Parts: sequence; structure tokens; C-alpha cells
Amino acid sequence: MGAQLRIDGLQYGNWSRAIFEEMRAAKLDAVHVTATYWENARELMRNIGAWHRRFEEHADLIMPVRTAADIDRAQASGRTGIILGLQNCSPIEDSIDLVSVFKQLDVHIMQLSYNNQSLVCCGYLEDEDAGLSRFGREVIREMNRVGMVVDTSHTAERSTLEAIEYSSRPTVVSHANPQSARATPRNKSERVMRALAESGGLMGFSCYPFHLPQGADTTLEQFSEMVAQAVDVMGVEHLAIGTDLCQDQPVEVLSWMRNGNWARVMDYGEGSAEQPDWPAPLEWLRGAADFPNLERGLEARGFAPSEVDALMGGNWRRFLDEALQPQG
Amino acid sequence: MGAQLRIDGLQYGNWSRAIFEEMRAAKLDAVHVTATYWENARELMRNIGAWHRRFEEHADLIMPVRTAADIDRAQASGRTGIILGLQNCSPIEDSIDLVSVFKQLDVHIMQLSYNNQSLVCCGYLEDEDAGLSRFGREVIREMNRVGMVVDTSHTAERSTLEAIEYSSRPTVVSHANPQSARATPRNKSERVMRALAESGGLMGFSCYPFHLPQGADTTLEQFSEMVAQAVDVMGVEHLAIGTDLCQDQPVEVLSWMRNGNWARVMDYGEGSAEQPDWPAPLEWLRGAADFPNLERGLEARGFAPSEVDALMGGNWRRFLDEALQPQG
Repeated sequence: MGAQLRIDGLQYGNWSRAIFEEMRAAKLDAVHVTATYWENARELMRNIGAWHRRFEEHADLIMPVRTAADIDRAQASGRTGIILGLQNCSPIEDSIDLVSVFKQLDVHIMQLSYNNQSLVCCGYLEDEDAGLSRFGREVIREMNRVGMVVDTSHTAERSTLEAIEYSSRPTVVSHANPQSARATPRNKSERVMRALAESGGLMGFSCYPFHLPQGADTTLEQFSEMVAQAVDVMGVEHLAIGTDLCQDQPVEVLSWMRNGNWARVMDYGEGSAEQPDWPAPLEWLRGAADFPNLERGLEARGFAPSEVDALMGGNWRRFLDEALQPQG
Repeated sequence: MGAQLRIDGLQYGNWSRAIFEEMRAAKLDAVHVTATYWENARELMRNIGAWHRRFEEHADLIMPVRTAADIDRAQASGRTGIILGLQNCSPIEDSIDLVSVFKQLDVHIMQLSYNNQSLVCCGYLEDEDAGLSRFGREVIREMNRVGMVVDTSHTAERSTLEAIEYSSRPTVVSHANPQSARATPRNKSERVMRALAESGGLMGFSCYPFHLPQGADTTLEQFSEMVAQAVDVMGVEHLAIGTDLCQDQPVEVLSWMRNGNWARVMDYGEGSAEQPDWPAPLEWLRGAADFPNLERGLEARGFAPSEVDALMGGNWRRFLDEALQPQG
């Protein structure tokens, strides 16, 4: 591994050269980008194809990540490595064989569910959570085998705990915060945080205002205090960043994230009929270019340089080094 | 409505002119046929297209059923009406709008799940059952609206009870038996049977050996005794036939029913590694041509002619008359 790394564990921008230039301005060495919320197999292939074009057109700014070493190569060449991931298992549909197919297409991280019940387990917005399904156990075994990271950011509590327990390899919560910082089911309980840490997993702190103590008014100091408290629970080596930045996305995309194709009546998710739009941006994280502000916040909170490095990217790098490799 | 009707509430044959000729030999006026176990939207469209060809090629033997009156037309013209149905919600994928699309394509009955957890609810082979999902409630409302019958034959207990409760229109268990006759989770508890009857629903008796008291050795007398006991619980007007005949299907199809695309290890479902094949056929129901044997069995058990007529088809006809109509 090389110098200090900056890695963002979750973004879903309205991708453009401008955003990739912001990533470079922030010296982001890798970003985990979302390629699916509700898409099926064919639709994900379209999205992957669109990434192929972006890798061609913006080869001076970004490059695909297949192994963790590609992140070092990205850094060495002054580019941002793009780690493709899914916020839902919808693209594998009901087909266990699609796990290895999408791994071959460089999909390296997959959430087991997005808000709603999936074929694998349960999302956090359901009233009831039955844990892992029969297919769900098969899927986790297969993800473990091929080296696709299990992500439970939008997964309900019981399903998350069962996934951590059932998975033979460490899992992640790529983007969420402690429920002690903000009591929403979208954030994670101390029980989940401890189980995640004990299993060698990783949680990335979200900067999405609905996940933060004071919403869009949350200060960088409050954010850094949240980090410090989580470090007490999980240990600094199990924490990282997953900003959940959805840069330049119109409200229609937010509505689609919430409603997909599944409802005839509007579902407002974390918003409401009175506040259906994106929350106001944080002053200290209006876009990818502001990523280094997090570093300044952590430094100001008193984290040692080695801790700041771990949180800002080192932990993701170490985790992915093992996690992206196929088994045996 | 016309004369006595014979309706089979579930078959999945390896469709051929020979089977349609057996249906005619049995004077079957309508058969609910399965067009999906695991198929997605596109694959169901292929299966529906195959039915279009069958309707053309065997127009002297079969015809499509769009409304219950088509069953009378089938009878009057000496043909068997084909009611298309699904044993899984997989073809609507995650899209609420596909319910009305498939209704327009004459899909009139849909199971909410097949053995495993679906996006709608839970199948009977899962360890845990969280009931209806958020999407599941949307789907039932939409099925109620367009006139697509909710079927919970392979659905787990809690999900079945919640579907009966949540649906504004009566639901069916197209093919299953009382658990008192054979204690398998694939059969239905007295609690489900009573809730089904109270809501105006219908249960069709299965002749699949794994659902019967003595397996393939079950006699017609034992079958008829099972019917009589269920009549005591539900009332004769809520019971019918759904043979679950899978005529001329090779073992590969059985294996596909059980495994779909979801497992890398073989799942034997109701069978076992020692007995992976189809169960031996019942002596008194080797194929569709034997359907009238059920009538003889019920007569011998002492059912009145009006009761026999209700069980053999009258109840399905009455139920579908209302159930297939769109609402308001």
C-alpha cells in the first residue's frame, strides 16, 4: 500500500465530468458508486455499459477498480478508482448464478435489500423482518465465494444481524450512522455495530442529512463527535466514510429511489408530503470536492494522524484488499 | 349458468393434444393451468404466446377463459376452457403496473409466493414468515381492483392469513388439503380453512400424493372422507377440486419446480435424495381423463347430487363469476 488514501464508501451522483473533476479536486483515490437501486439484470447491464463509456471518455480522471491494488494504481496515476456496487439485490433477480456473472462485470459490493423486502431478506422500512430467506443464505454463500462484499446499509435489523452471522467473511454497512446519533431505523443499533466490529466488518459514516443528528444543520463538529462516540463502540479500525452524496440529482430521482415501480401511491420514505424534496445540503459537504473537510473535522476533534488516515480511506483499503478476492 | 360443470382448479401438464383430448374425455369444462413457477415477465409472455398457439392449433378442444361465462361457452361448444394462472408472483417482478398488464393478457389467478420468500410475502418452505410486505399490500389491492384472484396454495401460514384479511375480495387456495388429513406445512391448518370460508373463499382439494393421507396409496374412499371432514369445517360451498396433476412431466421439470434458479445445491422440496422423482400416480387419477372418478367417490361417500355438483365445478364457477370482474 502507498501513501494516505481517501476513499468514499458511497456516492450516487448524476455522473458527469464536473463530478469526476470534483473527485480529483478532493484527491479521492476511490469511490464506491451505486449502479442499482431497483434495476433488474438487464437494466444493470445498461448501467454497467454506461460506466464503460465513462471510463473511456474520462480516462484521465477515473478508472475501474477490480482489486484493491487498483486503488493504489488510481492514486499513483492521479485518478479516482470507481468501485461498482448495488444498493439492492434486484439485478440478480432469482438467479444464484448471476452473482458470479456480475462479479465478473466488476460489481464488488451488493446490498441485500433496499428499504423493502427482497428475495434475500428484509429492508428497514418493512413492519416485520423475518431475516434471511432460503435464497438469501444461498446468495451470501455465493457472494462469500466470489468475493462480493455483503452490504446491509438499508437492511432491517434482524436481517442485518443474521447476515453478519451467516456470512463467512466480514460484511459492511457502507453508509449509515449510529442510532445513538439519530434514532431512525435507517441508522444502526449498537448491537449491529458491535456485531459488525466483532466480525471484522466496516461501517461508513453517512453525510445524508436525514441520518445526522441535526439534519442539514449538523455541524462538522457534531459529525466528528458522532465519529468519536462510534469509535468507542466499534474501534477505529472498523469505521470509515460513506457520504451517500447524491450530487446533481433531480427530485425525480429521489422519488424513484423511494417508489421504484412498486407503489401506485407516492411513498415519501425519509421525507414527507410537506418535504418531498432532497434535504438541504450540509454547508461543509456540498459535493465531492468538499470531502477533505471531513479530514479537517476529524483532526480538529483530536484524532491522531494514523486514525484520520484509517477513517478517511485506510480502513476501506485494508478491508477491500481481502474482501474482493475470490475464496480458495 | 348451464348444466352441471366440471372444473379442475389446478393442472400443469406437459401440454399436448393428447392431454386436451383427455380433458374432453373427462368432460372438463374448465381447467386452471399454471403458466409460471419461477418465470419473470418476459418468460411469462413467452408462455402466454405458447398458449396462443395452442388455442389456434387445438381450437376444437380448448378455448381461453376471460370471464366465467366463457366456461359456459366452453361447455356449450364441447370444449375445455383454459384459465391461465401463476403459481408465483415472479412475473410481475417489482412492478405494480404489471398486474393489470397480465390481467389484460388473461392471467386471472396468481399465487403470492411459491415455496420461497417472494417480494410480496412468504412461501411455506421458509423457516420464518413476516407476512405481507409493503409491495405485497400494494399487489393485493391492485389484484382486487383488476379482478385477479389471490391464490395462497404455496404460501406460508401467517402470510396466508394476512392475505385473506387484507384482501377486500375472497381469495383461494387452489390446490391443497387440510393439515388434519396430512400434517405437512404445504397443506392448510383449520385456522386458515375457517378464515378462508368466512371470507367467502375457496379451497380446491389436491390429488398430489405428497398432500394426501397415504401418499400414492391413498384410496378414493380416503380422499372422499377427507372431503367430508373438510366440509364439516368450511361448508360445502367453499370447497372444490384442484388436482395438481402434472401430467407427462419429466423429472427435470419437477427438479426445476423445486430449485428454479435460486440454489447451487439440489433442493428436494417435498421429496428427498432417496426419492427425488415424481411420486407414483394414484390408481384412480392417473391423468385428466380420470377426473370423473372423483365424482364417483363423492357419490359413494353419500354426498347429495347438488353437493357433488358444487364440489366438482359449481363452486369454482360461482366464485369466478364474481372474482374475475374488475372492481367498480
